[in-house]
Amino acid sequence: MPRTKTAHAISDHIKNQLICVVTKKRYLDRKEELSCYSYDAFWEESIPDAVIFPRTADEVSRILKIASRHKIPVTGRGAGTSVCGAPIPLYHGIVLCFSKMDKIIEINTRDRYIIVQPGVINMDIQKALTPFGFFYPPDPGSMATSTIGGNIAQNAGGPRCLKYGVTMDYILGMEVVLATGEIVNFGSKNIKDVTGYKLSSLFCGSEGTLGLVTQAILKVVPMPETIKTLMVSFKDLDDTARAVSDIIGSGILPAAMELMDKFTLNAIEDSFDLGLDREAEGSLLIEIDGVKEACEKEMGKIIKKLTENNAGKIQESSTETDRQRLWTARRSAYGVFAKLAPDIISEDVTVPVSKVPEMIRKIKRITKSYGLRAGVLAHAGDGNMHPMIPANKNDKEEWTRVEKAFDEIFEAAAHLGGTLSGEHGIGLAKTRYLPLVMNQDTINLMTRIKQVIDPDNILNPGKFV
Amino acid sequence: MPRTKTAHAISDHIKNQLICVVTKKRYLDRKEELSCYSYDAFWEESIPDAVIFPRTADEVSRILKIASRHKIPVTGRGAGTSVCGAPIPLYHGIVLCFSKMDKIIEINTRDRYIIVQPGVINMDIQKALTPFGFFYPPDPGSMATSTIGGNIAQNAGGPRCLKYGVTMDYILGMEVVLATGEIVNFGSKNIKDVTGYKLSSLFCGSEGTLGLVTQAILKVVPMPETIKTLMVSFKDLDDTARAVSDIIGSGILPAAMELMDKFTLNAIEDSFDLGLDREAEGSLLIEIDGVKEACEKEMGKIIKKLTENNAGKIQESSTETDRQRLWTARRSAYGVFAKLAPDIISEDVTVPVSKVPEMIRKIKRITKSYGLRAGVLAHAGDGNMHPMIPANKNDKEEWTRVEKAFDEIFEAAAHLGGTLSGEHGIGLAKTRYLPLVMNQDTINLMTRIKQVIDPDNILNPGKFV
Repeated sequence: MPRTKTAHAISDHIKNQLICVVTKKRYLDRKEELSCYSYDAFWEESIPDAVIFPRTADEVSRILKIASRHKIPVTGRGAGTSVCGAPIPLYHGIVLCFSKMDKIIEINTRDRYIIVQPGVINMDIQKALTPFGFFYPPDPGSMATSTIGGNIAQNAGGPRCLKYGVTMDYILGMEVVLATGEIVNFGSKNIKDVTGYKLSSLFCGSEGTLGLVTQAILKVVPMPETIKTLMVSFKDLDDTARAVSDIIGSGILPAAMELMDKFTLNAIEDSFDLGLDREAEGSLLIEIDGVKEACEKEMGKIIKKLTENNAGKIQESSTETDRQRLWTARRSAYGVFAKLAPDIISEDVTVPVSKVPEMIRKIKRITKSYGLRAGVLAHAGDGNMHPMIPANKNDKEEWTRVEKAFDEIFEAAAHLGGTLSGEHGIGLAKTRYLPLVMNQDTINLMTRIKQVIDPDNILNPGKFV
Repeated sequence: MPRTKTAHAISDHIKNQLICVVTKKRYLDRKEELSCYSYDAFWEESIPDAVIFPRTADEVSRILKIASRHKIPVTGRGAGTSVCGAPIPLYHGIVLCFSKMDKIIEINTRDRYIIVQPGVINMDIQKALTPFGFFYPPDPGSMATSTIGGNIAQNAGGPRCLKYGVTMDYILGMEVVLATGEIVNFGSKNIKDVTGYKLSSLFCGSEGTLGLVTQAILKVVPMPETIKTLMVSFKDLDDTARAVSDIIGSGILPAAMELMDKFTLNAIEDSFDLGLDREAEGSLLIEIDGVKEACEKEMGKIIKKLTENNAGKIQESSTETDRQRLWTARRSAYGVFAKLAPDIISEDVTVPVSKVPEMIRKIKRITKSYGLRAGVLAHAGDGNMHPMIPANKNDKEEWTRVEKAFDEIFEAAAHLGGTLSGEHGIGLAKTRYLPLVMNQDTINLMTRIKQVIDPDNILNPGKFV
């Protein structure tokens, strides 16, 4: 399997074959066009030799047959919102951009599924389901722009995955084109299906290294009757985390429990003036949903648990506008950080829930020791944390410190029984850390699976496998 | 890859090596002992050459290294409750029985996981969690006796999987021994983990063909505050199924919605005298759980939907004894059928929920055309149906008709967009039907994955892959 990062310039002969499949209009290879497809929200970039916009699985199959014959790397791309470098065409070759495969094929709420092409934007799925009183739970921060194909490739999460689960939990079936062009189908329209290996779960989260999804059947669920949201702050980080465990331990599984540390809270308050307690060490944005009477009762219990854990001010949002204001603030954390430095490096480690305060303290200690600032956002209910470091990637000396800090952060997470990623994926960002959380035999097993499914290593080469 | 069913008698030399690993006490090879491990709840049998009871992952690894060196088939076994022949050692060789690896290693409700060895019985997990106010949702019919290792191998479901999901949805991590003896680890103690391929989901449901699970980290959830149960009957099957869709469509996801057809209902009534309506074409056992106030409100809505769909008598169970009586009846369906004939063939097809009544009618028509009787039990909320045919497997002529009927039943399910199994698995029972629901390229892909992970095909050979 070729593992060298060589140029794969596409000859005129091959170019003509590819244009035969998709027409000239859907084939880009001028440098100024290509550069738009050389990066995502991670900090590296690598320019492709061509960008192709397929319209059908058959076109994807024909392109992959050509690429496979000539050993040209092929990297799938949705909206390019990945923060781990997953869609960066590290070995150049072809970027297959799914923006023209953006149709919703079928909505069937009676049987609780929706069939979509990979280029459909997550938010458009939500909009299409709203009139039926249904929704699709996974809600990554990028949901307004990211595509379902990208969400599947990365097994995307989001705040409400605490209660509802991640992308993988909603895939009933998928159509996939393999590296050698075969079109395969996994799963079905059936909610329960144990027919053969669960290949949809293997391909979901495989970051485009095993095949390219050309259609997906997603499970959808009825919208809850009521949503209730509150924001609360704590003087002590341990109290914040204990409140999270206590709430879940009391039998309540909120739709979301978002934790912000002091640094993040202040950055948000600077921009939004929400009246947050600037002295608080931790704050929680808690949302519950369900039957109205249950939400009311659960909110009472939650407030009791918060109070028992020495909570400060509790702000319940009484209107949808109020609620949206809190979420806008939370969802803008990345943006407000961006004001602090030219670059913002947002990472994604996960630890068992009870280890959240210890991990936050470790993040603070590590970044401080490297002369860096850091804010922490966490989907606290499932221990999934996003340490964010404002920095300047053109400042080589500072950048070296940032990299060293992250090395230590990942080591610390692994030491606490945590893992490298809760929802962003491995991509270019974290391959070298894999040995922290899995033994060499496990890594070898992933490589063997990759080799047998993509023997020429043309699918998104140079990534974690 | 050897595909012939040859005898793999174990030489004295190999036997001594194996005994070195586990001692004589945990190595069986007398014929009268072996026959107990030659069958499950399916109707075929095949005797192993030896049965070994490992105590540790290291022992499993050493056994597999020996087996691998000598190309001896190895079939894992839990409690042998499978109904699809999954643990039958078709090619003989070694049965690795996990009954001595039955320890609960850790219960951590703060971080919402339990760590168990594969031989722990599902019900013992429930019992261990009860004092903490938590439970493990997957509840296969066999839960009183089946092991978690078997549940994982088959990706077991159960009635309450409608609301809570199946076994795969609860696996956070696992330790697995590969055919060649390597001990690998997938996942972690973290609720969210997208580090590398989701191998736990590939191995879950792989029926012991890819590796043997020696430890599992399972997600656990807080017990609901209240459970409410009702039983209702309908004169019309379409009304029964429409009530199911209408309830879910109204935003309620019950913990369970079990459908019984007239034949099953009468068989149960003969044994239990529950006062069920013997003239009803369909009946539903519906259970909801959650916050008390929500359950009360939802029960009101459910009764409204049932009434709108022309429901007959509705029996709400007012006490836990009442509730247990209803569930005992439902769970005894298999037993009451067994009174009707020497054998009872219980199958497991799944169709989209809206197709349930059509599928039931097809089952009736097909079995009638072959001069057979059939009852149908369904986890109706997810379209998962168990057609049950009482018959006598020693009556060759009748048995041929049974097999032909099932051929047609699977074709009918596939024709309705359904699939071959919702929770029982493929095992020996349904390999030949795979082409009904997946193309040859997909089947080839499963075979390629099997070959690369188990190159000598020693793990549970002769099954679906």
